[in-house]
Amino acid sequence: MAESKKTPVLKSRGWRDRWYEIIFEADTRAGKVFDVILLIAILLSVLVIMLESVKSIDEEYNDLFHYAEWFFTILFTIEYVSRIICAPRPLQYIFSFYGVVDLLSILPTYLMNIAPGETQRLGVIRALRLLRAFRIFKLAHMLSEASELRRAIWASRSKVAVFLATVLIAVVIEGAALHLIEDGKESGFDSIPESMYWAIVTMTTVGYGDSAPVTPLGKFLASLIMILGYSLIIVPTGILSAELAHGERARDRTRISTQVCPECMREGHDSNATFCKFCGARL
Amino acid sequence: MAESKKTPVLKSRGWRDRWYEIIFEADTRAGKVFDVILLIAILLSVLVIMLESVKSIDEEYNDLFHYAEWFFTILFTIEYVSRIICAPRPLQYIFSFYGVVDLLSILPTYLMNIAPGETQRLGVIRALRLLRAFRIFKLAHMLSEASELRRAIWASRSKVAVFLATVLIAVVIEGAALHLIEDGKESGFDSIPESMYWAIVTMTTVGYGDSAPVTPLGKFLASLIMILGYSLIIVPTGILSAELAHGERARDRTRISTQVCPECMREGHDSNATFCKFCGARL
Amino acid sequence: MAESKKTPVLKSRGWRDRWYEIIFEADTRAGKVFDVILLIAILLSVLVIMLESVKSIDEEYNDLFHYAEWFFTILFTIEYVSRIICAPRPLQYIFSFYGVVDLLSILPTYLMNIAPGETQRLGVIRALRLLRAFRIFKLAHMLSEASELRRAIWASRSKVAVFLATVLIAVVIEGAALHLIEDGKESGFDSIPESMYWAIVTMTTVGYGDSAPVTPLGKFLASLIMILGYSLIIVPTGILSAELAHGERARDRTRISTQVCPECMREGHDSNATFCKFCGARL
Amino acid sequence: MAESKKTPVLKSRGWRDRWYEIIFEADTRAGKVFDVILLIAILLSVLVIMLESVKSIDEEYNDLFHYAEWFFTILFTIEYVSRIICAPRPLQYIFSFYGVVDLLSILPTYLMNIAPGETQRLGVIRALRLLRAFRIFKLAHMLSEASELRRAIWASRSKVAVFLATVLIAVVIEGAALHLIEDGKESGFDSIPESMYWAIVTMTTVGYGDSAPVTPLGKFLASLIMILGYSLIIVPTGILSAELAHGERARDRTRISTQVCPECMREGHDSNATFCKFCGARL
Repeated sequence: MAESKKTPVLKSRGWRDRWYEIIFEADTRAGKVFDVILLIAILLSVLVIMLESVKSIDEEYNDLFHYAEWFFTILFTIEYVSRIICAPRPLQYIFSFYGVVDLLSILPTYLMNIAPGETQRLGVIRALRLLRAFRIFKLAHMLSEASELRRAIWASRSKVAVFLATVLIAVVIEGAALHLIEDGKESGFDSIPESMYWAIVTMTTVGYGDSAPVTPLGKFLASLIMILGYSLIIVPTGILSAELAHGERARDRTRISTQVCPECMREGHDSNATFCKFCGARL
Repeated sequence: MAESKKTPVLKSRGWRDRWYEIIFEADTRAGKVFDVILLIAILLSVLVIMLESVKSIDEEYNDLFHYAEWFFTILFTIEYVSRIICAPRPLQYIFSFYGVVDLLSILPTYLMNIAPGETQRLGVIRALRLLRAFRIFKLAHMLSEASELRRAIWASRSKVAVFLATVLIAVVIEGAALHLIEDGKESGFDSIPESMYWAIVTMTTVGYGDSAPVTPLGKFLASLIMILGYSLIIVPTGILSAELAHGERARDRTRISTQVCPECMREGHDSNATFCKFCGARL
Repeated sequence: MAESKKTPVLKSRGWRDRWYEIIFEADTRAGKVFDVILLIAILLSVLVIMLESVKSIDEEYNDLFHYAEWFFTILFTIEYVSRIICAPRPLQYIFSFYGVVDLLSILPTYLMNIAPGETQRLGVIRALRLLRAFRIFKLAHMLSEASELRRAIWASRSKVAVFLATVLIAVVIEGAALHLIEDGKESGFDSIPESMYWAIVTMTTVGYGDSAPVTPLGKFLASLIMILGYSLIIVPTGILSAELAHGERARDRTRISTQVCPECMREGHDSNATFCKFCGARL
Repeated sequence: MAESKKTPVLKSRGWRDRWYEIIFEADTRAGKVFDVILLIAILLSVLVIMLESVKSIDEEYNDLFHYAEWFFTILFTIEYVSRIICAPRPLQYIFSFYGVVDLLSILPTYLMNIAPGETQRLGVIRALRLLRAFRIFKLAHMLSEASELRRAIWASRSKVAVFLATVLIAVVIEGAALHLIEDGKESGFDSIPESMYWAIVTMTTVGYGDSAPVTPLGKFLASLIMILGYSLIIVPTGILSAELAHGERARDRTRISTQVCPECMREGHDSNATFCKFCGARL
């Protein structure tokens, strides 16, 4: 998120600042209206892309979808150019995550009309538009919730990394083992990568059934993998639960310590404290 | 739940009040008996609807089901009319959630006999009767448990909203990606909505296997989606666990810290404490 | 578990008491040896039943399995008779849970030889023998762990009941809805019970794929059910986690309060208490 | 892990100590570089094994894979010999877990060239090389995280054992019951072991669908198993969450309560406290 929260106010760019407030921020009324309209436009344009991909619907409403697509593309192009113009540092915006997503949202429509052959399939890339909806979350008070979730996930990152590495190593070795046992049995274990795909499908308990062991030994090993794999895969749930509970507890503690020391003006005392723990003054 | 717990006692409607007590409340003995009989009638009538839908059973017991259905419909109609009569504000009841459910429980039987053609299939709507069973929960001491669960779910609502929005955006983009890769491969990714259906089936780890990727790239991407998706989907479990643990802790604290020492004015004593644990004064 | 921990010692039944100690209890060395031998016999006999059911193995080792089965049956019969003889209250034992399981473990073998026709299939009932292994858990120090788990599950029983009732109501209504939409589409929703089976398979995320919606509306509804159902089904995990965490915390608190009041000899003080909270004496 | 952290420094083996530092430890710069190179070599060699198993790719790059395999095998052989030479107790290393894995990583390539017939399939065993990547975790600060996870899992081991025993007993009895009901229905319940495989696939919610009940009674029983099984299988998640939360809390407490007030001798001060919060004395 490259948009800085407070832009340095330059005197010469007054209208740009006003635009900036509307387009990038959501503090003002105009900014909120802009964000809501943008969100609706994004959702509608993604709906068009979705319906366009259904052959029977596309045949009937082809023209409507065509015009709608051009309408949204031009709208988003205007928005993109506006963002470049009023951003304090245009280049930083262009190469930011959202800058790239904004560009990818409009580029396919132009490419499909310049070179209509093979590029036709690129139209699906426009679905990335939906990523822009994340930006609108600034509107809601969801932001603080999202940030707490992010904190909990971030705090557990090394645990999750250890876990993921273990899962991946398990997947490779299980895949190799099942490939060794089931190779040539027409059951979808013809190569290690395919067996690894099976191992992931199994360990995440998705279980399509497009490949499944058929030999007794393969079934026995698969059973072990399921029970062990299940035990393995519950680990991150436990990690996250503990981390979130920890966060809640930390907040509890913070909420309890509302007293401020009259001498040193420092906070963070326990609710049962009689004396300031920093300077020894009576609270 | 529009039923008010304490109805304003009007002198002119004495028998209505007695009825109201029996039909809407479960505090009196008569009210409890009424609720239990109603629950049994609901469960039996739903059982009839279920068995009726099994062709082989329906052919044999068609008449029995027909009479049973009319018996329950008339019973529920009497109950519905009674509720309207004795409710302090009949209109409020009629348009409340349970009022609509009560009506939907009896309407299909009448419609099916007035216009027996296409309405035949509406009979299934009567299964909504089961929703009325929720009303009977007032009977059990389950209510407080349910309300604690509701509190926990309600307290996590913004976290869950952020989570659901993220999942839906992920589903659309994954669906679009798999549609791009697997289109025309006879593997069930013919349109974005169908691919989204696959993405939901996969991310919730249901995994029917009616559509599954067949290309190596599709399988690779699907594997990523499963592992990431699995990581994503554990989030609400963690949120709810933390929230429920928080609730328990809050209850613990409440049970402990209501008394204040009359001498030193300090809180945090256990509920079974007779003397202040800080200054020794009698509480 | 009808076995009382302390049997009233009657003078006239000395040898029965010794037997009782060995057969029912696991405190003495002889009792432990007895339990371990019994466990091995149970596991071996269940292994025989399992292998017997595999046609190819059964054809080859039919005689061996036959003799092994009679060996174990006679062994368990002797044990069953011994239990009846030395139990202080034989009838109470016979009609206890384990008494019935002990009888069901040996009865099929006799029945299969008296009337060898249709009873042949009852042989599978002998697999219930395995339930007797639970009795051996007395051996291990697992008992206290199991009892803590049982406490946590018991403490959450009303929450779980509310949850299960909600799931069942959801299953019926979802089943009815999908039956309404998918009836006659050869997709396995021919009756409400079959649709309910599908709903359970889906909500528990098992997802065999033997029945799956094929119509767009059915798929859309199924997607909603999956996401909502997933949200629903995580609830008990949260409940149990919170309950177990609560148990741990309760244990923590107990462990902290090791002080005993020198005046009133009562325990249960917080670690930061200076005065006894019961009598006001200085700790 | 047989590698002792501090080797007794013998004067006569100076170069061996330096080698030991580089090969077995990751404290020095040279040791870290060695570990990173080794990790890359392991990952590349496993990638070669994976690609080799894909028939279409193997046919094209057969020679390249052959040379790469020999390159890695010779590299790992040199490493293995070096480890034996510089280990303070070579035999202890050879029979340690990693010693056996190191040997299994290189042996198949030699065997496949000495006796090229049936041993060809053993090549897959080389995938065990990946297990050696675990050794590299010493590099990262992940070690402490992994050890906390290990502590939580270890602390819940008896709970998990009780749980696993319960699951296995349930699997056998469910398998036997479904075998009794569905035998001869072509639905994959031809023997108890096959039914147990189904029960594991179902209880872990994998649900391939390669075997699924077809009789109404079988479906009813399977539904019960799914709901009960689901309830059963969430237990370890709760256990682990509670255990991890307990660990976090223990850490919190430790960080807080090490100091004792020199005046009033009371504990429970925060680690950043300068004065006793109970009597105001300087800590």
